[in-house]
Amino acid sequence: MRLPWETSRIAKMNEFELIARHFQRPTPQTCLGPGDDCALLRSAPDMELVVTSDMLVAGVHFLPDTDPRDLGWKTLAVNLSDLAAMGAKARWALLALSLPAADEAWLAAFAAGFFACAQEFQIDLVGGDMTKTSTSGALTLSVTALGETPVGQALRRDGAKAGDDLWLSGYPGLAALGLKRLQGELVLPDPLDRLCIQRLQAPVPRLLLGQMLRPLAHAAIDISDGLLVDIGHIAKRSGLTAEIFLRQLPRLPQGVERALALEALLSGGDDYELAFTAHPRQRPKLARIAAELELPLWRIGRMRVDTAAPVAQLIDPEGKIVPWGKPGYDHFSMPPSLP
Amino acid sequence: MRLPWETSRIAKMNEFELIARHFQRPTPQTCLGPGDDCALLRSAPDMELVVTSDMLVAGVHFLPDTDPRDLGWKTLAVNLSDLAAMGAKARWALLALSLPAADEAWLAAFAAGFFACAQEFQIDLVGGDMTKTSTSGALTLSVTALGETPVGQALRRDGAKAGDDLWLSGYPGLAALGLKRLQGELVLPDPLDRLCIQRLQAPVPRLLLGQMLRPLAHAAIDISDGLLVDIGHIAKRSGLTAEIFLRQLPRLPQGVERALALEALLSGGDDYELAFTAHPRQRPKLARIAAELELPLWRIGRMRVDTAAPVAQLIDPEGKIVPWGKPGYDHFSMPPSLP
Repeated sequence: MRLPWETSRIAKMNEFELIARHFQRPTPQTCLGPGDDCALLRSAPDMELVVTSDMLVAGVHFLPDTDPRDLGWKTLAVNLSDLAAMGAKARWALLALSLPAADEAWLAAFAAGFFACAQEFQIDLVGGDMTKTSTSGALTLSVTALGETPVGQALRRDGAKAGDDLWLSGYPGLAALGLKRLQGELVLPDPLDRLCIQRLQAPVPRLLLGQMLRPLAHAAIDISDGLLVDIGHIAKRSGLTAEIFLRQLPRLPQGVERALALEALLSGGDDYELAFTAHPRQRPKLARIAAELELPLWRIGRMRVDTAAPVAQLIDPEGKIVPWGKPGYDHFSMPPSLP
Repeated sequence: MRLPWETSRIAKMNEFELIARHFQRPTPQTCLGPGDDCALLRSAPDMELVVTSDMLVAGVHFLPDTDPRDLGWKTLAVNLSDLAAMGAKARWALLALSLPAADEAWLAAFAAGFFACAQEFQIDLVGGDMTKTSTSGALTLSVTALGETPVGQALRRDGAKAGDDLWLSGYPGLAALGLKRLQGELVLPDPLDRLCIQRLQAPVPRLLLGQMLRPLAHAAIDISDGLLVDIGHIAKRSGLTAEIFLRQLPRLPQGVERALALEALLSGGDDYELAFTAHPRQRPKLARIAAELELPLWRIGRMRVDTAAPVAQLIDPEGKIVPWGKPGYDHFSMPPSLP
């Protein structure tokens, strides 16, 4: 015997069914996965739990017409990048969505991208929430990611030491060029065009690099708001000045105006590479890690004691400080760069 | 020496400063609180971590003109209610906000309410995110709450046993009446009026009750989507039928039409009371808990084996099943009840 509403529900897909259909997958490293009031997790006794939360809003963090599969990947990837910056092993995630409409095809594609990233980095999706916002409302995505590090070994922003080298992975700036290209402000030659779009839409969190850096680096951060802004956080938190040497920066890409490429490198966000500091004696080990991961690691500067306020400084080949006007993306003090 | 942008930021409040000003408080039970890429937590070795995430959207979960202090309280409280339903001790939270505008007064009031709840239940806010959405966008709030239970002792939805009593705390339905009153569909006499509004705007998560139930109850859930829907989850997950006896339901409030009050009790969400099942031998202990907490615990039914699909059934005094048409709130299969 059923109550009337039990049968009437079959015709219409509801919130619970949508979650069950698209977002319930096996959670092998979890005591209790989605479907209860909470999920139950266990971390090993000698581990610290590493937790981060990020919200992505259509029109602010991504173009409203972004391919849902790419968006699914990116939504998880940007949170995993925060775990990478702590040197953590990523393990679990929770996802909350607020949608203008329950579009099954969109949800299926979004979930495919999300779980492609989850599978690549062995993440269990253990819970979440789904809400219908008004039809004029912006699609909003919120992820919490959880990982682990051995107690006391996480890479923090405040651990840099005077005399440390300052390092950078990959080619930050490509995502910002990709965004300008999508907005029609720029034409890029192939294969740079494809690479920039890929970096913008499907960034790769540097989880393996982060874990390999744990015994070597003193401080780390992921480049999400722009190189100068984010290295500024390490400087401020560590009470040191970060000197970034112009001529030690990554090579700028061919086929795009140099000034534009430099601005993208220094101020563009959304690349999710890592910046970190380490003692100069670690240079040989870091060279081996770069070779092993096939990922360039650039020694772009150094940390030093300063009598003035601790900041990130850009230094030209003559040793002079280069003024730099547009440090990165901030939601409240700058107009949003997306329509 | 500073880069130009470091000084230009002083005039304009930005995202980092807004977070620092309103959402950074001491986090005594946390290894590393807000301000890094992630927070670092440690749970005791014999504990399981209990995790939940909920999103609240203006116009869907709360009226857009809700007092920000109440909203701050409720945003955290509804997540703590999920921890309560697992029998967990609540410990940490992360908060992500997407705001149409950076309104300092609003943020200050919201933070005051949020931290009032955090302090009441000893929660550390360990991280979060803040985004400016378009000015026409809906205010969206997302909280992840974390707690702990001793390994294997969490109260799950799937643990109910045939022959268990079915219990309910407090007076569910008051919040739904409060909402109707705020929407102008209802006039309520004092002090019921004040009570209903208070239940809607500042619900009290039953954390203490949940923890006291851990050794006694077999299954539990919090009533957030409606009594019948939520008890239906216990029934379905446990593979049993939940019989709810009409004459054992909580007393309906005076001064409001009985049919309306009954509908609010059975189908209204947003009260965040607990429903749970326990062996009949636990009745004396549960009576003592009710007295100690000064919180009514109603024995409203029982769990039994059924050959048909497991559901929640409403039973009248003659033992007949009462058809019930409006089971609870679902975002996608019903029109939203708020403008």
